[in-house]
Order: sequence, then structure tokens, then C-alpha cells
Amino acid sequence: MAKKTKHAISPTREEDYPEWYQQVVRSGDLAENSPVRGCMVIKPWGWGIWENMQRVLDGMFKATGHENAYFPLFIPMSFLEQEAAHVEGFAKECAVVTHHRLEPHPSGGLVPAGPLEEPLIVRPTSETIIGAMYAQWVQSYRDLPILINQWANVVRWEMRTRLFLRTTEFLWQEGHTAHATEEEAQQETFQMLDVYADFAENWMAVPVIKGEKTAGERFPGAVSTLSIEAMMQDRKALQAGTSHFLGQNFARAQEIKFQDQNGQEVYAWTTSWGVSTRLIGALIMTHSDDDGLVLPPKLATKHVVILPIYRNDQQRADVLAYCERLRQALQEESFSGGPIRAWVDDRDLRGGEKNWQHVKRGVPLRVEVGPRDLSQQAVFVARRDTGEKRSYGRDEFVGCVGQMLDEMQSGLYQRALRLREQHTHRLDDREAFRDFFTPRNGEKPEIHGGFAVCPWHERAEEDPLLKELKVTVRCLPLDAEPEPGRCILTGAPSTRRAIFAKAY
Amino acid sequence: MAKKTKHAISPTREEDYPEWYQQVVRSGDLAENSPVRGCMVIKPWGWGIWENMQRVLDGMFKATGHENAYFPLFIPMSFLEQEAAHVEGFAKECAVVTHHRLEPHPSGGLVPAGPLEEPLIVRPTSETIIGAMYAQWVQSYRDLPILINQWANVVRWEMRTRLFLRTTEFLWQEGHTAHATEEEAQQETFQMLDVYADFAENWMAVPVIKGEKTAGERFPGAVSTLSIEAMMQDRKALQAGTSHFLGQNFARAQEIKFQDQNGQEVYAWTTSWGVSTRLIGALIMTHSDDDGLVLPPKLATKHVVILPIYRNDQQRADVLAYCERLRQALQEESFSGGPIRAWVDDRDLRGGEKNWQHVKRGVPLRVEVGPRDLSQQAVFVARRDTGEKRSYGRDEFVGCVGQMLDEMQSGLYQRALRLREQHTHRLDDREAFRDFFTPRNGEKPEIHGGFAVCPWHERAEEDPLLKELKVTVRCLPLDAEPEPGRCILTGAPSTRRAIFAKAY
Repeated sequence: MAKKTKHAISPTREEDYPEWYQQVVRSGDLAENSPVRGCMVIKPWGWGIWENMQRVLDGMFKATGHENAYFPLFIPMSFLEQEAAHVEGFAKECAVVTHHRLEPHPSGGLVPAGPLEEPLIVRPTSETIIGAMYAQWVQSYRDLPILINQWANVVRWEMRTRLFLRTTEFLWQEGHTAHATEEEAQQETFQMLDVYADFAENWMAVPVIKGEKTAGERFPGAVSTLSIEAMMQDRKALQAGTSHFLGQNFARAQEIKFQDQNGQEVYAWTTSWGVSTRLIGALIMTHSDDDGLVLPPKLATKHVVILPIYRNDQQRADVLAYCERLRQALQEESFSGGPIRAWVDDRDLRGGEKNWQHVKRGVPLRVEVGPRDLSQQAVFVARRDTGEKRSYGRDEFVGCVGQMLDEMQSGLYQRALRLREQHTHRLDDREAFRDFFTPRNGEKPEIHGGFAVCPWHERAEEDPLLKELKVTVRCLPLDAEPEPGRCILTGAPSTRRAIFAKAY
Repeated sequence: MAKKTKHAISPTREEDYPEWYQQVVRSGDLAENSPVRGCMVIKPWGWGIWENMQRVLDGMFKATGHENAYFPLFIPMSFLEQEAAHVEGFAKECAVVTHHRLEPHPSGGLVPAGPLEEPLIVRPTSETIIGAMYAQWVQSYRDLPILINQWANVVRWEMRTRLFLRTTEFLWQEGHTAHATEEEAQQETFQMLDVYADFAENWMAVPVIKGEKTAGERFPGAVSTLSIEAMMQDRKALQAGTSHFLGQNFARAQEIKFQDQNGQEVYAWTTSWGVSTRLIGALIMTHSDDDGLVLPPKLATKHVVILPIYRNDQQRADVLAYCERLRQALQEESFSGGPIRAWVDDRDLRGGEKNWQHVKRGVPLRVEVGPRDLSQQAVFVARRDTGEKRSYGRDEFVGCVGQMLDEMQSGLYQRALRLREQHTHRLDDREAFRDFFTPRNGEKPEIHGGFAVCPWHERAEEDPLLKELKVTVRCLPLDAEPEPGRCILTGAPSTRRAIFAKAY
């Protein structure tokens, strides 16, 4: 009987997928739960990924003509009430500030004091407070478009939270634009979806499907919501970014109006779009394995860790000098993600412990250097994505490190794409649909199903089978051809297919 | 009688300094008040300055071994109570979250619902929540030091607010470090003060005095607080950054303890240090003039605006092509603040209006290009700092633009330094002290006084004359020689001098 391979993460994906995820986050030093219910602490290694994401996305936003600004954390309660669907969508999960100081209680401790005349909501999203400013800024068609983004924290009081995927406080960017015409606002909505898809695929190595949300899944107050959807390793869908065409809904509620070129007073057309720290959750669940985090090199905080191995002080001096020269040589190389970031880990820790730490943190390349490598001008390299380990000539490795990282990046993308293709099925029959989303013999309840691409009619969402199976309509793919048929759930005539899946 | 010069900002500094400041902020498109009491909106032009500040400071923090992370926005009320002086300092100005949803009120509208078991405080600073995590992370001396910074928003419920200088919500960075020894923590405190002083002087062009705060001005819970103090154009002091040595106060309150190398369990030594969007206020009040904002080039969002001038379509095409080539040539140049950022402003606006907009926004160099400049291969350049305007050969200008920006940067610093030196006086006599801080005949009450460097004894702060004159002890300068004397206020024997001033 073959010996069972030992993995760094326990349980494995097969054994308990949700718990595996928590362990990858924890052992990868990415984040922890804090003493504040549902709020996380993002640790330096996790923050480094977010910093890289911010830098790349920010460059993309600027390249498409957007500027950054900053709007208040608090929203007066009355603002939230201006747009009916919007307040309906967010009222149930708001952190409400009601007092502005603390004072001693006669029996000890402190109590809230200084009640506010009007409660303030900690922003769950900023359409209303930003719209109130736009209403002041926009007088004439010459003041449009307004193309602004903000990087901010937002709060939604979630009952069940999970690190990165759903937390009470999370970090995100929210773009808010105002336009003179409907067409221009529509174009903006599509453009930003393309930016998100480009980022997901080419930086995160996460293949995504661009689509439109159905009415039931729309952003509260939007006319239409576009999203990118990715398949995780448990075959569930994860919505990784959304771009909303708000029509004139918020402009009417908030009086964002202007004189057009004919001197007529008309309402502006607005959009909003956002991605959040949830992307880190998507990245983890797309690429990681039973040994922990696997990072796409283009978003990794560091690319190469050099691990010196020695037995005595003389060896130590020689090995460290060799490592330092290697580090410098690597830092002069680059790949499609930019210059290579390498460091020497000379901490006083057992070699095995140190090595596993870097495995679990997903460092793309680990390079061991011992006394024998010096004499042979060699290095011993381990790839995090494939697990492959072998010796290279020192110069050979420096010469090909950029190419190796690029290969890893595209390899991760291809692997994720294969998984999605393997588990995406066109279904036309209600029973096949039920079977697809029901774990078969030997299948773990947590890993089964996938994307079902099925004829869809807008009343499909009311069908009780969806609730029974815990399946939702993820999106109507933008690139799908019209296709007459009968809705897989209602049997009503259908003109297109939708993607159905279980989802985060 | 000479014709009165017309200024873009009304009132001028002389006429009404506080109102002048508000007008500079507004007409420079930096920020606005929002509908939320005391909270500001930072507009794109103002945000660009903050982005530059963040980028430079972040680089300095990383170069001194710090990493970024992120901790929760909310702090449980009980955490704030752990350190007695700390809660005393912040209880009076806390935004308190007491509910987690809104529900419809029978008579219409919404009311807060879902009361929290324990109120949450929107962080006014994060020592307590970060300390709670450090207590978990630190077990052994091997886990130290922890050198972490976070970029975040904080809230202090201020009764009187002023854009950038004092707002209910503001943005800042807060460094929080934990060390094994007192000496190391002390060194960290001084090191970060040096980083702040370096940034203020070499990037903001704001000369600062490094000093220690007296007991009455210390951060709540700190053993000692260091600060950098700058003189504004109304001769008031502005505290631009602080670095706190927290001793073991927070470590004891929060149980941050570890096994030292001898196996003894001991408390860690901690520090914290921060600068905020207040720096933008300091920058405005140090350099701006009666025509509006003046920006030190090293922190300006853009350095050169090119203004095309034409009368007809043929001229337009030629002039724009010339401008675009000029822009490209400029962008290949650089100065000590990095590559030069130039843009062509071809908006459909009257030339005068457009020009004044850039004056008020403090663009360092404005370059006008008309048809005659084309034929002469010339450009007409206006410097924002001196107001000097003259024609340059096109290549001559491209060749010297970097040097010109460097001259502007050091010129602004020198001008600010001269102002400070001119209004800094060593005083030894109580009556001279009173005179110095009392507006003389012909002096505006808002612009007088300066820095009084006087013998100081620690009980000086209780003297009623300070309250009467609205003067405070700003700091005990770090570089001062010991100097025996008699306290200017109490007459008690004194060993050193302090800086007294009115302050923001």
C-alpha cells in the first residue's frame, strides 16, 4: 500500500473544504478574526497582496480617465432613505452611530452619551453621500462626466462571516460616475466590467465569466448590474466584481441635474462599480492546495525566498555572501509582473519549519543554498505551483527566473480554466439539473456540481427547486448567442441561457 | 496713489487670515465641507497631494523596516477602558455605534434597531485594538520587534472643525511597534520623529522643530510624546506629527508579554506614531499666498500645465500639436521629486478664467503657447512661487525645467525658514512675554507673535497668563543646550528653554 502523502494543511480540501479554507488563511499569515465580531485583521503578508491589487487596479482606473477622491465614512440616515430600493437593500445590515461621547456610569464603567439628533450610518456603500456632492458640483453639461473612484472601508452587518469572503468591515474601491447621456453611462458600466475581467484573468490568474445579473440579484437601486463570476475549487461560484448602471434612479432621488446644450434641465445618468478584499478570498480558493496558499506571481508580495543552509560559522559567512549576491542578481531580473522581489531568510529557525512556513505562505519559488551549492555554483529550487524540485546552475536560474514566474502565472490560469471547463455543463432537463446539484455516491457534499448553463426565463428564480438545491442564477453571460428553447425550470419559452450554480 | 493690486483670494491674509485659509482650500479645489457635520470631502486635486504624501512616507516606513497591515474600524467600549489615561483622553469625543440595523417606524421613516450588547467605538486611534492582537502574537523574544503601520480613517468628535486642520473624520497613518527592551522602543520613537522631520523639510518644504511635549500636552497614555512643530504664516504653531514612547503602559493594560532570553515573563515596550491629512493644512498655510495655493513641486499632483492659445481652427491644430510635443519632451525630464508630470489643458474655457484656475490650484509652472511662440520656437512661462513671467526658448525651457522646480522647492523652504527665524525670539521677562503675544498698534489680532523661546519650569503650564494669552508650551526642543535660568512664568529655577506659541 502506498504511503499516504502528508499535507501541510489539515483537513485537506476533500476532507472538509470550508475548514481547509480557514486553515489556508491562517497558516498563510493572511488574516485573523479580531475581537470585534465579524471584523478581520489583515496581517502584513495578506496586506501585501491587497497593496499589489490596489496598485494595479488604481493604474487601470487612471488609465481609463478616473481620479481618486475621498468622501465621508458616515451617511445621515435620511440620505439612505432617498432611494426606496436602496434603503430596502441595506437597512437590515447597518452599523448605526447614535451618540458622540462616553460618560461615566454612576455604578462604574462608561455609557454612551451625547445623543445625535439624526443617527449616522457607517457607509455600507456611498451612492447617497457621493450623489449629494455631485448634485452640488454638476450645473451644466460642461461639468460632466464626473469620473471618480475612492478607496475606502465599508461596513455591512453580516450575521455569518468568513475571512475575506464576507466580513462586517471590508476594504474596497467604489467608482461613482455621472454622465450627460444614457449611452455614455452604459459604456462606462461595460468598460469597468472589462477592467475587472482583465485584472482577474491577467493578474489574479482567475478565469471569469462576464454577465448580467437577473432582477433578483441586482444591486439595490440599480437598473442593471453586471458582474464577473469565477468558479472556486469546490465548484461554487464567486462573484468577484460588479459594475452597476444606475440609470437616473439616484439622480432623481438626489437631484443630480444639469442644463444640457439646449438649455434644458435634465437628470444625469450614473454608474457605480466596485471590487473588495473579497478578491483575496477568490485568489486563495482558486489556486491554493493541500499544502496551503499558492500565489499567482504577478500579485505575490515577494517572488523568491532564498534559504541559506550551513553548519558552522565559516560556512555561514560563505553561504550568506553567496545568497546576498544571488538576491542582488535576481532583483535585477524582471517578468511580466514587474521587477523580481527576492529576499534572504536568515532567521534563526529550524530549516524544515522555515521551509514549510514559505510553502504555506505561497512564495512562488524557494531556493536552498548550502555549502555544496557554492562549490558547484548551483542552487536548489522548489516551485510552489507544481511542487517540482531540482538543482540549477546559479547563472542558469538567474537567467530563467523571469520566464519561470511567467510560466507559473499562465499555468495557474490554465489549471483554473480547465477546472471550470470540466465542471461546466449545458443542461436542458429539470431532472438532470436536480442530479447535477445533488451529491452523488462518493461525492463530498461540499464539492460537487459546477456551472449549469441552461435555458432561462425571468420567472425561473421563483421556482422552489432553486431554494431546495441552494442554487442561484449567477448571470446571463454577455457573450452568449440568442438561443430559443424552454426554461429548464418553468418550461416557459426562453431566448437565452443563464448560468446556475451554488455560490459564495 | 498706487493702484491696489488685485488678488485672486478675497479676503487676503492681512484682511482675515482664517477666512483666507478657507478660501484657498475651496478655490484650490482641495476639499469641501460635506453634509455630515465636521466631515470633509477631499476632492481629486487635494487627494492627489495626499496620494503623493502617502507614497513617499510609505517608502520611508518600509525603508526603516516597517510593514503595513489593517486592523478593525471598531473598538469594543471595554477595550478603551483598559488604559485609564487613554480613555480619559478620548471618551469625550467618540462616535458610538449602538445598533446594527434600521427598521421602519410606525409613524414613518426609520429608527435604529438591533441594539448591540456592547457599544462599539469608531476608532479615534488604535492602540487598544492593535495591542489586543499583539498580546496574541507575542509569546517569545523571538517574536519581537513587531514593526507595523496602518493607513486608516479615524474619528474624533470635534466641536469646532476646520478643513484638513481639525475634522471629525480624518485620514492618517498610525505606526504601532512592540519591542523587547526600553532602549529599542526609545530609539524607534526618535527614529520615526526623524522620518517625519525629514519628510516635512525635504518634501513639504516646511521647516520644523523637533521637540518633546510637556506633561500637559502628552498623548493620553504615553510616557513621552515627541512632535515636530512648524510656524504658519500667521506665526501660530502647528503640530505636524507625533511619535509616542508608550513605555509599558499599554503592554500592562493589554497583557503584551513574552518570555525573554532568560525564560522570564516580562512586558513588552511599545510605541506609536502618526501623521494625518492635517499635513495638507500645514502645507497650505506655510506656502500659499493671496492668489491661492502654492505647492512645493515635490508633492504637486502635476508640475506643468500647458495652455494653448489660438484664434481659429488652423491655429488650433498647429498649436495643439506643438503643445503635445512639448508635453512629451517635458515628461522625459525629471527633478529631485521624480519624473515631471505635465498636461495640456485644452478645455473650452476663457483663457483668463483657465489661467486663474491654475494659479489658485497652485500648479508650479504655467506655460502659455500661442501662434507666435510656434514661429519663434518659444514658450511663455509663469512661475507660481515668485509670480515671475518670461519667455524662454522652447529647448532652453525643457533643458532647465527640472532645475527650476528644484529651485522652487528650496526657495519655498528658505522663505518659510526666514519667516520662522524672523518671528522666533528668546525672551526672559514676563512682561516681554505678554507684549510679544499681544497685538501691537496696527497689528491684526490674527497675525502677530511667533515662537517665544523662554526658560521653562514644569509648573509653568499652570500659570494663568498662558490661558489669558491663549498661548501653550509647544515643545522642549531636542537640540537645545542645557541653560540654567529662571522660568519666565513661575520664576522657579529652570534648566532649559521651551518654545511657547499660539497654536492650531
